[in-house]
Amino acid sequence: MGIQEEALKLHEEWQGKLSIDSKVLVKSKYDLSMAYTPGVAAPCRMIHKNKDDVYKYTGKGNMVAVVTDGSAVLGLGDIGPEAALPVMEGKAALFKEFGGVDAFPICIPSQDVEVIIQTVKMIEPGFGGINLEDIASPRCAEIERRLKKELDIPVFHDDQHGTAVVVTAALMNALKVVGKQWQQVTVAMSGAGAAGSAIVKMLLNVGVKDIIACSSKGILSKDEEYSNWVHQEIAQMTNKHHKKGSLADAINGADIFIGVSAPGIVTPEMVETMAQDAIVLPMANPDPEIDPELAIKAGARVVGTGRSDYPNQINNVLAFPGIFRGALDARASDINEAMKVAAAKAIAELISDDERSADYIIVPAFDPRVGKVVAKAVYQAAKDSGVARRK
Amino acid sequence: MGIQEEALKLHEEWQGKLSIDSKVLVKSKYDLSMAYTPGVAAPCRMIHKNKDDVYKYTGKGNMVAVVTDGSAVLGLGDIGPEAALPVMEGKAALFKEFGGVDAFPICIPSQDVEVIIQTVKMIEPGFGGINLEDIASPRCAEIERRLKKELDIPVFHDDQHGTAVVVTAALMNALKVVGKQWQQVTVAMSGAGAAGSAIVKMLLNVGVKDIIACSSKGILSKDEEYSNWVHQEIAQMTNKHHKKGSLADAINGADIFIGVSAPGIVTPEMVETMAQDAIVLPMANPDPEIDPELAIKAGARVVGTGRSDYPNQINNVLAFPGIFRGALDARASDINEAMKVAAAKAIAELISDDERSADYIIVPAFDPRVGKVVAKAVYQAAKDSGVARRK
Repeated sequence: MGIQEEALKLHEEWQGKLSIDSKVLVKSKYDLSMAYTPGVAAPCRMIHKNKDDVYKYTGKGNMVAVVTDGSAVLGLGDIGPEAALPVMEGKAALFKEFGGVDAFPICIPSQDVEVIIQTVKMIEPGFGGINLEDIASPRCAEIERRLKKELDIPVFHDDQHGTAVVVTAALMNALKVVGKQWQQVTVAMSGAGAAGSAIVKMLLNVGVKDIIACSSKGILSKDEEYSNWVHQEIAQMTNKHHKKGSLADAINGADIFIGVSAPGIVTPEMVETMAQDAIVLPMANPDPEIDPELAIKAGARVVGTGRSDYPNQINNVLAFPGIFRGALDARASDINEAMKVAAAKAIAELISDDERSADYIIVPAFDPRVGKVVAKAVYQAAKDSGVARRK
Repeated sequence: MGIQEEALKLHEEWQGKLSIDSKVLVKSKYDLSMAYTPGVAAPCRMIHKNKDDVYKYTGKGNMVAVVTDGSAVLGLGDIGPEAALPVMEGKAALFKEFGGVDAFPICIPSQDVEVIIQTVKMIEPGFGGINLEDIASPRCAEIERRLKKELDIPVFHDDQHGTAVVVTAALMNALKVVGKQWQQVTVAMSGAGAAGSAIVKMLLNVGVKDIIACSSKGILSKDEEYSNWVHQEIAQMTNKHHKKGSLADAINGADIFIGVSAPGIVTPEMVETMAQDAIVLPMANPDPEIDPELAIKAGARVVGTGRSDYPNQINNVLAFPGIFRGALDARASDINEAMKVAAAKAIAELISDDERSADYIIVPAFDPRVGKVVAKAVYQAAKDSGVARRK
């Protein structure tokens, strides 16, 4: 039985991967008088007097909504909110396992930006954070930007920022392996969606000076106008030498290739044109932009993908549980760039100088240390950057 | 330490009464490949092909949203969505304990009927049922009516229908104790909100011919016009003799008094004017319309309240967990009158002819049999009334 058949059979047995459990006993009159009427009136009154006490007396402070419209689910595309539910349940399970975060799926049957924003705002009182998931670009970026502004709880689009954090962590170690600095390298990126945009911002933030980004139509340039505002935004931040041309032209001479686009679009010949000691991260899933073995044969020194069956798996599960754990613990009003960079550093630093190698630039998804160190670093960064509301 | 102080302290320790747990392991690469990528693509694809398969491969079929706007919480009134959260968490805990139902609180920061309806519709894909809770009348009745029409999952306003079911169950036994029939009795009701409306409908449905309902301004009559449409609706269904006057006039000569209104508004003198073997259910909480002991002294034969420290506690927890369990098991498109009457009968029949007495017309909230028998009866009624979608 293949993975798909086996997983289907298991999902039918499970009938849902989540269980809502009571942490408190409700088995006797006494229990009921504490957890429900009449005792429950006491915390209600306190919160009514001081809304902030909702963090003190309820689960809000540990509860994250995993919100999708089902429009860009895994590699499956626009399959709708019901079909997205198995993924969101799985995500919620990972939140608990790796971050101790209670997470609940909210699947919205609308792809209208305003409707999605309004819905999230209308469920906010019960949640301490919002994780946007598998919403198509550029809509997702617009929704995230608006919700970050309009809500005072952290809003995080994992497909963008989780990816950016883990890519940055992997590159921190990869650069040490090849002995290069952020400031020196040229980065070629394939994929100008929301993830690409977040990666560009984060790399600029850690010191990269030269990024050339490509959409499916070639190199983006500030000399052009784009109807897609994420393309427009990326074009403004990249390509300082006003290069024009195809993906092959972007890759030519680059130190780093980052793929968040489509399977098989990078050829060995393209990798051969890269700078010495090239770093290649083809992360299209499940089939990368170039087969890792072909990339190595073509001269790449370090290769990482989204897959668990090759070395250096770039997996978001390294980031989002610890990031939310830290943000919730700090009762942060936002997950800002400083917190994301702190997360990337914490992930990277799990690999010591002795351990680091071309085949080990990122720890495995199941490293038991990662949730805690990321949470700690993010908590501290929230404090230092002034967004923590916990005293 | 009093109940309120103790409950407050416990709520601070708990920091939330619910935990979202994974029913499946996500501890290894293999686990992840089944519960998350890449295996999760299989159920996603199936549901995308056939939306109804969401019941087969996810938790939708066992998941109920406990939805409030925080406008009529317990006896506390309009305390807002955050302050309502401790109650909704408690309700969700009861759903699990007594019905095995996964329930999740949704607290909406708007009291606009259209916004609440829209929000519920926009979260519907992940839920198999909607329990409306503690929303002020008449708004709650409007919201329920609309959602029942516009959604094809069961929508139930517990404050209305849960109360009606348990009151009806209690009266079924009380009538046997006093040897009267539904068709003979006159019912006086104080309280013309959503609960009152649901009680009237259910009593008419089981055969009562004569109900006189009072708002705080006295007896409702179809000869009058009311700006509150629930008053208008109740007036149309009741008071066939076009009585006018006060609550005292309504109670005079009645066989049954039902109170879903305010503390202390019924005097012993009023009870003295009732028919022989009067049944008195003053259910205002925590302080009833009349003290049960005073009612007995004034001649009432059977008395039931909302309180657990007197005999015959009319407690919704007897109804809603089993009702949803049965409706979800049948994958019912609605919770209709037949299902509610079936629930009332099932609850009433837990007391045998030998056991039944003036002090025992309803089983205690913690009777371990009740969830199962209600679920079974509701399941069967859903099948018989044609709303069950499970083959």
